[in-house]
Amino acid sequence: MDQDLHLRETTASREELLRGHFLHVVRDTVELPGGGRATREYVLHPGAVMIVGLLDDGRLVLERQYRHPMGRVMLEFPAGKLDAGEGSLACAQRELREETGYSAREWAFAGRLSPTVAYSDEIIDIWFARGLTLGARQLDEGEFLDVLTVTPQELLAGCRDGRVIDGKTLVGMLWWQNVVSGAWTLDWSGAMPPDLAR
Amino acid sequence: MDQDLHLRETTASREELLRGHFLHVVRDTVELPGGGRATREYVLHPGAVMIVGLLDDGRLVLERQYRHPMGRVMLEFPAGKLDAGEGSLACAQRELREETGYSAREWAFAGRLSPTVAYSDEIIDIWFARGLTLGARQLDEGEFLDVLTVTPQELLAGCRDGRVIDGKTLVGMLWWQNVVSGAWTLDWSGAMPPDLAR
Repeated sequence: MDQDLHLRETTASREELLRGHFLHVVRDTVELPGGGRATREYVLHPGAVMIVGLLDDGRLVLERQYRHPMGRVMLEFPAGKLDAGEGSLACAQRELREETGYSAREWAFAGRLSPTVAYSDEIIDIWFARGLTLGARQLDEGEFLDVLTVTPQELLAGCRDGRVIDGKTLVGMLWWQNVVSGAWTLDWSGAMPPDLAR
Repeated sequence: MDQDLHLRETTASREELLRGHFLHVVRDTVELPGGGRATREYVLHPGAVMIVGLLDDGRLVLERQYRHPMGRVMLEFPAGKLDAGEGSLACAQRELREETGYSAREWAFAGRLSPTVAYSDEIIDIWFARGLTLGARQLDEGEFLDVLTVTPQELLAGCRDGRVIDGKTLVGMLWWQNVVSGAWTLDWSGAMPPDLAR
């Protein structure tokens, strides 16, 4: 028995609204649980990863990047979109190396976050990385960002006082705090739970 | 001297890509810091609020809502978009009352989060509410959601094991955890910092 039947919507049809250079937007017509119909417009996204990179001295690997929609430079954990057919861990390894130059000896899948449930199907896989060694980074053309390392205390202070507002980075610090306190444990095998694997 | 000049992009022009029923998408052409141009496509959003509602016994007010882009029912803190000309606190009070039926005696502005810095300008103001009393809710037409109260321990367990992946809700728990531990303090005056007021 489905306990959520009174909440569920079912898709009746789909209309393509936008095929941009970057954004793909559709409008679905859905049957509402109470009868009747409504439209839902949202971004189709390939999925993404975020990396919480732990240096041996406890510092964290962060990026400063100008985010045009926000009109400002944001402090963020490294992150990026899955390429077609790319696995989640391979994507995390690639993005960390390309954007920051770091490679990691060990990886742990932490969990997921969906940043914008109302208008995007994006899901971000959260990875922790440790045993970091620095090499050369390889930014995409037209990509400009600074790499820096900060203490968790500095980063938490920024989360509290409004200097850090990037949602995924705040979620990364929820994970970091609970991992460090011992409340949440990580599996450093590099494996994902089978039902989440991608 | 602007220390971020090597990161900053400046807008050269804007093109309207989509005026949907719900989504407004633009494509800006920007001048890159290194010279040359690129396009940035993103959602223009009116801004939003989220409410961390604290019951007298410590339980938290949550919603279960079917999110069509995710194809599943999500557990989330109450949230909603600013109406035109509406203040942030007024919006938080309205959304909490309409969606859950609760009114609060005291309000504290906690901070902000930007869920999707790469393709939306949305900013969510995070409010805490206490002294809650339950009245009747007033859902919008075509809005279906369950209201429930959970212990913070239950909610944290869900954040850890993947039952809770809504980004804003995870950020709300970062705030909750640090407020309860005493690491972060709230101002229960209901005022916003003047530079953030809206």
